[in-house]
Amino acid sequence: MSENLEANMAAEMTVGDYLLHRLAEAGVSTLFGVPGDYNLAFLDHVIADERITWTGSANELNAAYAADGYARVNGVGALLTTYGVGELSAINGIAGSYAEYLPVLHIVGAPSTSAQAAGALNHHTLGDGDYGHFARAQAEVTVAQAYLTRGNAAAEIDRVIATSLRERRPGYIAIPTDVAAAPIDPPAAPLVVPAADTSARVLRDFLADARRLLEGADSATVLADFLADRFDARGELRALCDAGNFPQATLSLGKGVLDESDPRFVGVYTGGVGDARVRAAVEQADVLIAAGVRFTDTITAGFSHDIDPARMIDLQPFSASIGERRYAPLPLGAALEGLADLAASLGRDWSRSPAPAPETVSDAAADTAALDGELGQADLWRAVRGFLRPGDIVVAEQGTAFFGACTVPLPSGATFIGQPLWGSIGFTLPAAFGAQHAAPDRRVVLLIGDGSALLTAQEIGSMVRDGQQPVIVVINNDGYTVERAIHGPHERYNDIPKWDWTLVPRAMGAGTDALTLRATTPGEFAEALAAADSADRLALVEAVLPKLGLPDLLNGVSAAIAEANAE
Amino acid sequence: MSENLEANMAAEMTVGDYLLHRLAEAGVSTLFGVPGDYNLAFLDHVIADERITWTGSANELNAAYAADGYARVNGVGALLTTYGVGELSAINGIAGSYAEYLPVLHIVGAPSTSAQAAGALNHHTLGDGDYGHFARAQAEVTVAQAYLTRGNAAAEIDRVIATSLRERRPGYIAIPTDVAAAPIDPPAAPLVVPAADTSARVLRDFLADARRLLEGADSATVLADFLADRFDARGELRALCDAGNFPQATLSLGKGVLDESDPRFVGVYTGGVGDARVRAAVEQADVLIAAGVRFTDTITAGFSHDIDPARMIDLQPFSASIGERRYAPLPLGAALEGLADLAASLGRDWSRSPAPAPETVSDAAADTAALDGELGQADLWRAVRGFLRPGDIVVAEQGTAFFGACTVPLPSGATFIGQPLWGSIGFTLPAAFGAQHAAPDRRVVLLIGDGSALLTAQEIGSMVRDGQQPVIVVINNDGYTVERAIHGPHERYNDIPKWDWTLVPRAMGAGTDALTLRATTPGEFAEALAAADSADRLALVEAVLPKLGLPDLLNGVSAAIAEANAE
Repeated sequence: MSENLEANMAAEMTVGDYLLHRLAEAGVSTLFGVPGDYNLAFLDHVIADERITWTGSANELNAAYAADGYARVNGVGALLTTYGVGELSAINGIAGSYAEYLPVLHIVGAPSTSAQAAGALNHHTLGDGDYGHFARAQAEVTVAQAYLTRGNAAAEIDRVIATSLRERRPGYIAIPTDVAAAPIDPPAAPLVVPAADTSARVLRDFLADARRLLEGADSATVLADFLADRFDARGELRALCDAGNFPQATLSLGKGVLDESDPRFVGVYTGGVGDARVRAAVEQADVLIAAGVRFTDTITAGFSHDIDPARMIDLQPFSASIGERRYAPLPLGAALEGLADLAASLGRDWSRSPAPAPETVSDAAADTAALDGELGQADLWRAVRGFLRPGDIVVAEQGTAFFGACTVPLPSGATFIGQPLWGSIGFTLPAAFGAQHAAPDRRVVLLIGDGSALLTAQEIGSMVRDGQQPVIVVINNDGYTVERAIHGPHERYNDIPKWDWTLVPRAMGAGTDALTLRATTPGEFAEALAAADSADRLALVEAVLPKLGLPDLLNGVSAAIAEANAE
Repeated sequence: MSENLEANMAAEMTVGDYLLHRLAEAGVSTLFGVPGDYNLAFLDHVIADERITWTGSANELNAAYAADGYARVNGVGALLTTYGVGELSAINGIAGSYAEYLPVLHIVGAPSTSAQAAGALNHHTLGDGDYGHFARAQAEVTVAQAYLTRGNAAAEIDRVIATSLRERRPGYIAIPTDVAAAPIDPPAAPLVVPAADTSARVLRDFLADARRLLEGADSATVLADFLADRFDARGELRALCDAGNFPQATLSLGKGVLDESDPRFVGVYTGGVGDARVRAAVEQADVLIAAGVRFTDTITAGFSHDIDPARMIDLQPFSASIGERRYAPLPLGAALEGLADLAASLGRDWSRSPAPAPETVSDAAADTAALDGELGQADLWRAVRGFLRPGDIVVAEQGTAFFGACTVPLPSGATFIGQPLWGSIGFTLPAAFGAQHAAPDRRVVLLIGDGSALLTAQEIGSMVRDGQQPVIVVINNDGYTVERAIHGPHERYNDIPKWDWTLVPRAMGAGTDALTLRATTPGEFAEALAAADSADRLALVEAVLPKLGLPDLLNGVSAAIAEANAE
């Protein structure tokens, strides 16, 4: 039993205290959210808790995005909302955490047990006496759910948190006002997260088949994706890569899971579009070891990937498959470890003709670009490439920002945050806020379009309040350019209000204590980034780009999406 | 068949066109929403449709709030979002429309039928192949739902729209990209909204019992609430009031359903707190005719109303009751009409000692208030009272703004918009935007706290874009004052980022074409309102109030809520 727990128990522990204790044990040290009258008394306990810091968000959707961004850096996140209005505002963010495998714990302060039992006509209800509507909605986007009572609280809190951590997906805990304040006799044992099931026999069969495949192969490539990050298998992945000296690529959803400054890294695989060398390394290898990969539409340019399942060793979180044979239970980490041992025992060097890092952003072109011409997509990404440094957290909004940033090689130790599967525009601004809270000492570089920034802009005010100093690049291309690329390039529905972005931090409370700059040429943009680099305060650079300019990669992706929608 | 429909059919009507045709028939002329790639092709048809104007919102929650505000003035509203991310962002707004009875049609552009059938790993899905998650979540907060196919489209569109209009609650229509573009052979008949069931026998029984009750009574009062507005029974309500010359009151949820400048109007009934004369008129009348009333917690100061059911004639949308006897089917309008005839036949004048309009905001005090002192709650509401004029649309945010505005008598023909049952903070800013679109020629006066405005502030940019000229009063009391009143007056969780509100319209695109003023004294506030009145452009007045100042009414309500949460 920890000292904190003992101290709390001495002062009569409440259910709310116990929940906070378990959250802290799970690794949560910042709780995001918005106060509401069904969570206020519980908030007193949050404030009193020394292990957890309360961080208010401007609204609940932003809080969910912040908790997700925090979890991407910290491993787990949490938010607190109020019943009905608050939890439903957050649900889109929670769904994104579900789709992209982030264990975010959604704590909801609910009306008292007696109000619920009576079906009282309380505010934040639908007025029909049914208090189950919102929990049922939340069950669609969470992996475990609990409605706490005095009797079930300890067991249910443990179950939901453990399941969320094991499955790397969000959990939902509703805590009525009276239950939060009720005394609890907590279990003395620490939180147990059951390990994934394993089977020595299954692993042996898997490795035997993998050995046969590799022994008959002349070439093999490792393709890694986000699930290797989410299921904590980065170390095992690196060990495998080293053991066989494999050429390596990622999908954009998993960008950053491999060290992109490693010479064996060939680039980001984007299906039938993008760099030819990366396609060759992935599609033409005799064996492809896919670690935590999901081929979703936007990251494969509309399922244009061309990979023969028969030559793929496909490692998923709890199982693997080779061709049509499936191996389960087989956790991702164990499979990678086994493969690393196998690769070492085979003793081969698979890095035949290792491709150099792909030059999708041409350095040669930089020499000749006019510094006082119109700032274009290529200029922008070239400058961003030069600006990034080791250890940065790069947050790129789904849209032109994501597809541009995808092709920029990451410096060593950098983290990349995007959301290409769920793809909720506006996500990255609060996610950057959350990520910065998870790593106060790292530089956060946010790349976001004007159309997207509009959705969640108020979180700049929270960054200001908390003294954060991210570099925010608002790519102002006058509307929803990524939508223009898919459909309706000149239609009114892709236009948006024209904000004065350089005024926004000041309006949101920064006074004169923020650096804001507007760049319309490559020269101005370079100067602005240099100024941001040494600003020691929040810096917002508005990069003015042509309305219809697209990163190269997005041209292929958007055409594929338009086609799929017409089918 | 209308000319438009014929013209459309000539050019081969699509399912999307047919949906727009039915929306227009239902009374929708503005479609709010946010573009997304699953609704873009449909949006082309929206733009091409002459009866419906596309109005983009900054995000989907704001679009839902805007459609709700629009429906409160126009009678019906609609919004368009994209699958998953968009529809879930909007769901809290839709739930509010459900709780407070607004027929808002939520149209969702969904992935193509073939992608869904294949369970494709598309963006905006949870990546698990289950395309039903979000429709199931939406079913919790809508009265009718349809997932359109080429085969069912016409029938399902008609069913959902008709049900929504009949029940005055939101409907959900998901329209896959390929279905939106598919040709349709539409029914030639106009949209039929089935009338509420009636029964001559039930009405006769009801009136006989009502007659007995009224004949034995010395006093009777009419208490009207929001359902009389939502079910289009304002005319019948007025006729009843006139027929018996009854003293009249409303609940705050239904504020504005009766003419508050009428001498028989006694005020807003708020349960055990508030004006004693209103309480007497409602609680001590021998008979209380309750028209469309729901006694919810915040509008009754925590169910502190004291009304004997035995002496209440309770009229609900589709039924009525007197004491323990229930009469169904009996639509609200028919019951009111029957009661009006009954009152006329009784020939009595029930306006014994009609109470004057309650002086909860004392005019006498105005004479002595120091114009250069600190601006307080009483000063604020006194000034607002003087500022309102006939025909205004007054939009008051749940919080200090609502409880203050509740006690301000409305001029004749004014509309009042609040959301005390659902109580989602941030609602009113986009709702004001939507209401202004429903009535471009009426003045919109928005009263909102700084904490609430933060949640949805970006919609000021949409107001600017569309050239709207509302008067926005931001009550800056430095945080969540209404939450402070319930719990934690000095806690950090009730603090919020300190914005410079006078800069906000400019940052959101107004340039210098908005009037922004800051008032800290009664004198400055009066001057600011006067300037706003003649501004002919968007006017934002920041009224700086003490952090802990509460309107009188809220003192009672917040104490009751704190108590209920502790039970």
